[in-house]
Parts: sequence; C-alpha cells; structure tokens
Amino acid sequence: MKVVAFGGGHGLAASLRALRHCQADLDLDITAVVTVGDDGGSSGRLRAERGALPPGDLRQALAALADAEAMRTVDLFQHRFRPPGPLTGHTVGNLVLLGLMELFGDPVAALDHAATMVAAAGRVLPMSCEPLGIEAEVQGADPAVPDDVLTVRGQHAVAVTRGRVLSVRLTPAQPAACPDAIEAVAAADWLIFGPGSWYTSVIPHLLMPQLAAAIVASPAHRLVTLNLAEEKETLGLSVAGHLAALRWYLPELRIDTVIADEKAVGDPEPVRHAAESLGARLTLAPVAMADGSARHDPAALGAALVPVLGAGR
Amino acid sequence: MKVVAFGGGHGLAASLRALRHCQADLDLDITAVVTVGDDGGSSGRLRAERGALPPGDLRQALAALADAEAMRTVDLFQHRFRPPGPLTGHTVGNLVLLGLMELFGDPVAALDHAATMVAAAGRVLPMSCEPLGIEAEVQGADPAVPDDVLTVRGQHAVAVTRGRVLSVRLTPAQPAACPDAIEAVAAADWLIFGPGSWYTSVIPHLLMPQLAAAIVASPAHRLVTLNLAEEKETLGLSVAGHLAALRWYLPELRIDTVIADEKAVGDPEPVRHAAESLGARLTLAPVAMADGSARHDPAALGAALVPVLGAGR
Repeated sequence: MKVVAFGGGHGLAASLRALRHCQADLDLDITAVVTVGDDGGSSGRLRAERGALPPGDLRQALAALADAEAMRTVDLFQHRFRPPGPLTGHTVGNLVLLGLMELFGDPVAALDHAATMVAAAGRVLPMSCEPLGIEAEVQGADPAVPDDVLTVRGQHAVAVTRGRVLSVRLTPAQPAACPDAIEAVAAADWLIFGPGSWYTSVIPHLLMPQLAAAIVASPAHRLVTLNLAEEKETLGLSVAGHLAALRWYLPELRIDTVIADEKAVGDPEPVRHAAESLGARLTLAPVAMADGSARHDPAALGAALVPVLGAGR
Repeated sequence: MKVVAFGGGHGLAASLRALRHCQADLDLDITAVVTVGDDGGSSGRLRAERGALPPGDLRQALAALADAEAMRTVDLFQHRFRPPGPLTGHTVGNLVLLGLMELFGDPVAALDHAATMVAAAGRVLPMSCEPLGIEAEVQGADPAVPDDVLTVRGQHAVAVTRGRVLSVRLTPAQPAACPDAIEAVAAADWLIFGPGSWYTSVIPHLLMPQLAAAIVASPAHRLVTLNLAEEKETLGLSVAGHLAALRWYLPELRIDTVIADEKAVGDPEPVRHAAESLGARLTLAPVAMADGSARHDPAALGAALVPVLGAGR
C-alpha cells in the first residue's frame, strides 16, 4: 500500500516513525513530501550562502525512516557542531545533503542516495526542487500595535510570531512542484497530512498549485493527524480551526479520516463537526506520549493507523 | 598477508590503490597509517578552529581503499564546496570525518565507521590520535638570504618551501603513537613506506618514538616505493638521498626491497648502492603512469608488488 506523508520537521518525523511501526503489517511503501521553506538556523544559513534547498527538514525525515542498523550514520547526520568556528550550528547531515545536492545537481537523486546511506524504509522528496519563501499576514505581530496587520516574511519569523496568523502564502506564488512528488501523490493509496506546524509545514503543500491539483485528483484516501498542542504560529486557532484552515486553503480537499488524541482534543464535538465538513470521520485514540509531552508516541500513533489505513485497502 | 602502508596524501593513496590491485591475489589485509601533521587548506582550518585531527589525508586513504560499489559515497566525500561562503574549500568527507571524530570521541572508531561507509578494503589509522606539528630547518627559505638556515613551521610551509630542507622534526617532539597503529605494525608481514612527500608524509612516521620502535622490532619485511619526481620540499635531494634520509632519521631501519620506476630513477647505480646500505634489493619496474605524469599507475605498481610481496610469504 502506497502512502505519502506531507509535512516538515518534527511533525512529519513523528508521522513517519508511526508509519514505520505499521509498515510490515500493512506492507507500506512510504514517501515523505517535505516543505522547503525553512530559512532559520543551519538550513537558513546554507540556503542564504549557497542557494541550497534547506536540508534540515529533509534530514529529519530521512532520520525518521532510517533503519536501526544505520543508527550510527543517523547519529552522524544528526550531530550538530558546537561552538566555536564557522561550522557552529550545522549538522553533519545538513552538510552531507548540501554536498549531495551539489554533486548530483538534482535534489531528488541526492535524497535517494542519502536514503541508501541510512537504509531508509521509504523515499524522501522535497515538495519543490527550489527553496521557497513563506509569508504571513499577522495581526499583532508587533505587540506595540496589537490591532495592526503586518506582513511577516520567512518561515522562521512566521513560526515564532507573537501575533495571530491570518493568512499564509508562498513566494514565489506559483512555485513548481517536484515532479516525483506529483507522481507519488497520483499513485498513492493514502495521503497523510500532519501533524506539524500548521501554517509553515502542513498548509504550504496545499499552496503549491500543481501539488494541490494532484492531491485533489488523486484516487487516494486522505488522513489528517491533528496536533497535540498549540504552537506559537497557531495561538488562538482551535483544533476544529486547524481543519477549517485546510479547507480554506484548498476548498476542493476531501478527507476520509481525522485522527486526534482523545485527551488533547478537548471537546470532540466541534472537531467532529469540522471533520465532517471535510467529509471525514473523526477517530479518537491515545496517540500522545505517555509522559504528557505534546509529542506523538510513534508506536501508539502507528497502532491507531493500522485499522484506518487497513480499512482503505 | 598483513600489510601496513605508511604515508599521507596522494602518495599513500597511490600505494593503497596499488595494493588493492593485488589484494585478491595475495589475500592482503591492508592497514594505512596516515600522518596527521597537515595544517593547510580545509584540514588546517578544521584543525585550527576545532582542534580536530586534520582529516584530509585520512579521507584520501579511505577513498583509495573504497569499494567500487561505494563510489557515489566516495564522490560525496571528495566533493569540495566552491565559493561563496564559509564552507568554501571544505570537502564533505572532511566534515564527515570531523563529525564522526566528535561523535565517537575516538578517531580510530570514527575511521572504522567511515571505512564501513565506503566499504573500504582495509583499515585507515592515524599515526597519532593528536594533531602534530612539523618543523624544518631550511637553508634559503628566504631567497633574500640564500645561505641562512631558518626554521620553517608547519607541514604546509615545509612542503612548499623554496629552500633546501636540512632536517625535519615533529612538535611535540615525543608524540604518542596510535596504539592500533603500533599493533598493526607488530602483526604485519610487510611494512610499506612511500611514495609521498618525503619530509612531510613519509619520514614523520620514523620520528614517532613508539612507532619507530615498533617498526624496528616488527618481524615484517619492509618495502620502500620511491617517488617519481622531486617535489618542492625535496629539491636537490637525489633519489639515493631519499633512501639515505630514511636511514639518517632511523639508523636501525632495515629494508628488504626498494621499488623504483626504471625511467624515473635515472642512473640506477647510486640508488642500488643506497638501497644496499639499508639491506635492500633494488627492483626496477615500469610503475609510472604511461602519460608521462609523475604519478604511479596503480595497476602497474600493483603488478610490481605481486612478486615482491609474494616472495615474502
């Protein structure tokens, strides 16, 4: 069964780790499609200095799909240089991905090679082969003028804004999607959105015209995994509002199943209603880490995915 | 048959590539022992910024031993970042080795892991687990005072000096050798010195007290592969003088065989005489590249090695 998981950063990694937990049971062929809007930290520097596709989220997806036998190489990829010196803050994996992308001249070939280096249990693709910008209209981005709506530019700035995100958009506005991602969507049995930073990691996929069209046209079933907690960029956005946002940005989007943590979701009724307005059934399951942190437990989320994905066969 | 090849940089890589050509025939177990005095280029910057063992020569040895199936990873390791930006000049492999050494906290474990990444046909060890300095007394280092003897500090400065190298030494003067290198020497059937930068890559091994003692005490046969041309640091040093220099720095050193290219060697008689003074027989063979460049042809040098090493069984 072919699954395509969309996202970026930690949320996508959680989704991929959960998929690996049910990969054998369901004979899953996993493809990750990763946002390429990051402009912060090591990725942001490599992008600014060398025009590279920001590698950090791609690296995280590869690490999530890596085979246990390649854990030393994963540790290497995740090793971050401490001060001092100009390498400070870079991970080895970011530099490896940068080198592979320069060497191959093609991010898809580079990522396929990196996947072999960690014996990844799936494929990692960028949503676009060019780095993208993210901008948002934010109310109260400047606390001195809390009612004003300002444009906040850059994924990092949007992700940490202190205001309320009213809308997001990509720059350029009509970026070309990665052809391999389009193909994967067309061939998928399941498309999986979230968890993750809603405005900067999940919704950007719906803002890519070719990718959005492929998502709408795909015969695949569709699943949304909701977040466990608010983030800075979604302060004030209800759980139901997360689903409404998907519909707002891609009105033709239909969803089959929404998975939420039964504790984190709060009152399930508005969420159920929002799910139904997308055509989806709400599935409540204990998918959060038992330690109370706002992170998905890969085994628990994987267990919740088995009946959902299995029913879609 | 266990062989240990000493050197650094391109010369050691040539020796290792030749050994790979006869590895199957002779069932060779190959260990490279690499100088760690480099202070130029990417290695020098990483060493200065992060206190790292200079990785460049280690990387070259790994690349020389890499399996053909890992060639994409070797290409990655050898990929050098072009301008602009602070990564300029670094190779990916240098950064990978730096990351592995930081991650493992042990250069030998780091190199063993790197060897698995390129499916290396042997082991690569540093001669010391600490970076070392190389200094030389050089006559005419400053062309304005051609008769003066000046101290030139640093491997790179010695390698490119315009004067005549009178003597070289390590700093610190009594560095600890890598224990695994000592063990490999003790267990070896053959020890192979050169080709390579004589003062900055070959002789430094003889200046390590523990390593020199292990070399003298080892029951192994010993082979010297002579260079094909003068380098800056050996301007004015005859071919025979190269052999005399080995003896000057380690008087107890005995050699069984000296291999020289039959064309590059010029008049063989003084070389034969210098070889005999080390206890060695001179073997002349066509081991240079057919294109006339001053590089060893790995296949030709490998073919010349087969009867020599085979006779030592």
